[in-house]
Amino acid sequence: MTKAIKNLRDHLAEIHDLARAASVLGWDQQTYMPRGGAESRADQLSTLARLTHSKFTSSKTRRLLDQAAAETAPLPADHDDRRLVEIVRMDLDRETKLPGSFVARWSRDASLSTEAWREARQADSFRSYRPHLKKMVGYALKAAEYYGYEDHPYDALLFDYEAGMKTAEVKAAFDVLRPAQVELVRKLAERPEPRTDFLRRHYPAGAQGEFGMKIAKAFGYDTNRGRLDVAPHPFATKFGRNDVRITTRYDENFLPSSLFAIMHETGHALYEQNVSPGLDRTPLSRGCSSIFHESQSRLWENVVGRSRHFWERHFGDLRDTFPEQLSDVSVDDFYRGVNQVKPSLIRVEADEVTYNLHIMLRFEIELGLIEGKVEVKDLPELWRTKMEEYLGVTPSDDKDGVMQDIHWSGGSIGYFPTYALGNVMGAQIYETVMSRRPETRGELARGEYTGLLGWLKENLYTHGRKFMPRDLAMKLNGKPLDPKPYLRYLTSKFGEIYGI
Amino acid sequence: MTKAIKNLRDHLAEIHDLARAASVLGWDQQTYMPRGGAESRADQLSTLARLTHSKFTSSKTRRLLDQAAAETAPLPADHDDRRLVEIVRMDLDRETKLPGSFVARWSRDASLSTEAWREARQADSFRSYRPHLKKMVGYALKAAEYYGYEDHPYDALLFDYEAGMKTAEVKAAFDVLRPAQVELVRKLAERPEPRTDFLRRHYPAGAQGEFGMKIAKAFGYDTNRGRLDVAPHPFATKFGRNDVRITTRYDENFLPSSLFAIMHETGHALYEQNVSPGLDRTPLSRGCSSIFHESQSRLWENVVGRSRHFWERHFGDLRDTFPEQLSDVSVDDFYRGVNQVKPSLIRVEADEVTYNLHIMLRFEIELGLIEGKVEVKDLPELWRTKMEEYLGVTPSDDKDGVMQDIHWSGGSIGYFPTYALGNVMGAQIYETVMSRRPETRGELARGEYTGLLGWLKENLYTHGRKFMPRDLAMKLNGKPLDPKPYLRYLTSKFGEIYGI
Repeated sequence: MTKAIKNLRDHLAEIHDLARAASVLGWDQQTYMPRGGAESRADQLSTLARLTHSKFTSSKTRRLLDQAAAETAPLPADHDDRRLVEIVRMDLDRETKLPGSFVARWSRDASLSTEAWREARQADSFRSYRPHLKKMVGYALKAAEYYGYEDHPYDALLFDYEAGMKTAEVKAAFDVLRPAQVELVRKLAERPEPRTDFLRRHYPAGAQGEFGMKIAKAFGYDTNRGRLDVAPHPFATKFGRNDVRITTRYDENFLPSSLFAIMHETGHALYEQNVSPGLDRTPLSRGCSSIFHESQSRLWENVVGRSRHFWERHFGDLRDTFPEQLSDVSVDDFYRGVNQVKPSLIRVEADEVTYNLHIMLRFEIELGLIEGKVEVKDLPELWRTKMEEYLGVTPSDDKDGVMQDIHWSGGSIGYFPTYALGNVMGAQIYETVMSRRPETRGELARGEYTGLLGWLKENLYTHGRKFMPRDLAMKLNGKPLDPKPYLRYLTSKFGEIYGI
Repeated sequence: MTKAIKNLRDHLAEIHDLARAASVLGWDQQTYMPRGGAESRADQLSTLARLTHSKFTSSKTRRLLDQAAAETAPLPADHDDRRLVEIVRMDLDRETKLPGSFVARWSRDASLSTEAWREARQADSFRSYRPHLKKMVGYALKAAEYYGYEDHPYDALLFDYEAGMKTAEVKAAFDVLRPAQVELVRKLAERPEPRTDFLRRHYPAGAQGEFGMKIAKAFGYDTNRGRLDVAPHPFATKFGRNDVRITTRYDENFLPSSLFAIMHETGHALYEQNVSPGLDRTPLSRGCSSIFHESQSRLWENVVGRSRHFWERHFGDLRDTFPEQLSDVSVDDFYRGVNQVKPSLIRVEADEVTYNLHIMLRFEIELGLIEGKVEVKDLPELWRTKMEEYLGVTPSDDKDGVMQDIHWSGGSIGYFPTYALGNVMGAQIYETVMSRRPETRGELARGEYTGLLGWLKENLYTHGRKFMPRDLAMKLNGKPLDPKPYLRYLTSKFGEIYGI
């Protein structure tokens, strides 16, 4: 490593350490922090964020980048150090586009808005949330102007989650998915519902956690380099490649909640535990993008964890853990039960078939707001209309309607589509694995996950954030994001379950 | 608050936040961190330490101090802001005395030395630890030269733990304590031993923790602003006045271990939870010194928690928690059992009467090393001689002899005396409380702790680190540190227990 590269890496390592320290503080805030700690924790996090930002956007970063660039130019295009310089320059250009005073105002108003959202949601009063949401849309629009864009202001917002993706691509994918998924939901609704009564029996939290972690370890989650804790909203977080933690929450009267949350977060954690050590302490030492990350959480949770193979292999173990609760349940009952398709009001509880429809509705609203074609005051009504149109259910209030998600309250617009497209990418990657490594199917049937993990590690996880999402998709699947594998997956899986 | 004071406080707040973030990372390292996290955690802590140090020792700090000093000069001598300027200037002067390169070398060698100590201790090989210890003594000596001193180089080392205390004062106190404590140990050894068999029955960890926390809360520990976790070595840590946490370790076959560790750490935590809010996010928002801190942990643990009053009040509750284990035990048995005096090899397991003798031995060795009168190679033999002389027991190896403590392995010389003098100060403060607020005795007998806590809060805790230890002692007790109250306390308590 040359002197210039070393200097750049040392500088980035310091910034990285501050950001990871903030992650530890954030994790503690969600898991163990006593109530009284909130105020000092906010101070500490804000100090760390300010220092991280000011160190990264300092002239020193640009100077070190320029020096390193001169030395990495002759290197192969995909050399770690060359990509480091290129990605960091991209981040720096973006992070310096928003004026500091604008970011400060946004951040302060976002806190107030999120607080207002919490209260308004509790009181089911969209009216009191409305002015805040309007302000947040204003910030997003203004940010898009600062960032700049070629085709559509929404492109500039998508960038934070999926660098380089265009709004037109999202639209195109959704235009393929929407009619097919609406049609599938309609067809399944005509078929008899599977049994699900047994999912709502009493399942003690301790045993749920133990079983969940047995599965996580079987998937390949290394608990010498990670652990499970309880948090109000499940998440995965990384303090370093060798310290990647997951959280879950337990509903003792509904087994799937924590069971699949653990598998989901394990998917995120497997990605992060297996990024190349060569990228440690750099901004490249994490997953490529929101879509790629979500593709892995959903692949392990759904494609693997909600498959017939999986339950044929693991149901016995689950029944040993909960013998009374599952005494009258067959593998087939269980498999069908955890794959019930039922249009519902709440996105985070949605099944695989209806999930994307919740997202499309949100994407269409976001687009309308950004294009100025939709007004904040009309959202509750618009929400109800679209829910009825896509899912055939209508919320009776705004609490479980337009106010159900936290995202917009802080001005996060552009995030939602990556959830749906994560499902799409997950299915696409799974098809790739099956064609390149056909023995994987047999391994999964035998409960062997090292083959699948190994392939994903070698072809995806190890690269971290080294490639742009589009390039990584080409490298991995040989083609851009494509909704067809996901539709094939849904049709085949749920056709079989529902006997269509 | 004037502009200059506000600027200084803002600057110190940022430094404080970084240091407290490091405390969170340190707490996690001891409680929940998976094994694999060690390396990245070391990176993060070292980055935080470097930034904290460089921000504090920057020219900005001195400039802000000078500006603030001009404005605080007319304020009363004990005004928060004036004391802030004075104490911070003292810290800054001290922290800038060691050259950066010296600190870096020391810190690196200290890590190696501590690692070597761990291995040498396991292998009971003082020989392999010896060169490291020699190096550490060298660093301490060199540091004393850098810091400078008037009377004795050891004064310069004491300063980190007890600012302003002189070696001569420690010697004078120990010269009073030594003969009296040796004599008391000898006398007690002639009396029949109390029953202690019941302390070694099986006590499940969960119930131990619940009982311990019931006591901690009764003492006044606010668990909305704190919590208990498990760590290999019990400690208390502060992330802010409203987030002060304690830890313990459970020995399921020896009840006193965790029981009194929780009370001990609660004493530290009560101090930290009750520092004045006006000192938040400044270097003054913590206990005054090691002696004052230890005085409070030992006061709550021993003077209160190992008193006859205490157990007359709480033994019933303990027996309800462990009915089988304590079925054949009376209050008197229990009280006498947890106050057994028995010379032993290990300092951290020592009773109230023998504890200080362990410390004096260490102090004399430290002094010998610093004065050049003792050589590292002679320590094992010297240890055995002094153990025999003071306690009448001799270790058969160096593992439980000269290598039992971690302190010296990193070059911490000067810390030990504050443990013994904490006992002394605790007894002195207790006498002060009893004379100024005689109703406290009756309250304690009724299990009411708010009176005692309130007095300590108002006269000690609230001041944080605002006063120099010597001044605080005068303010509190009307006289300097005095060993006589502790000797009175020991003689009266143990004379009664042992029927002398």
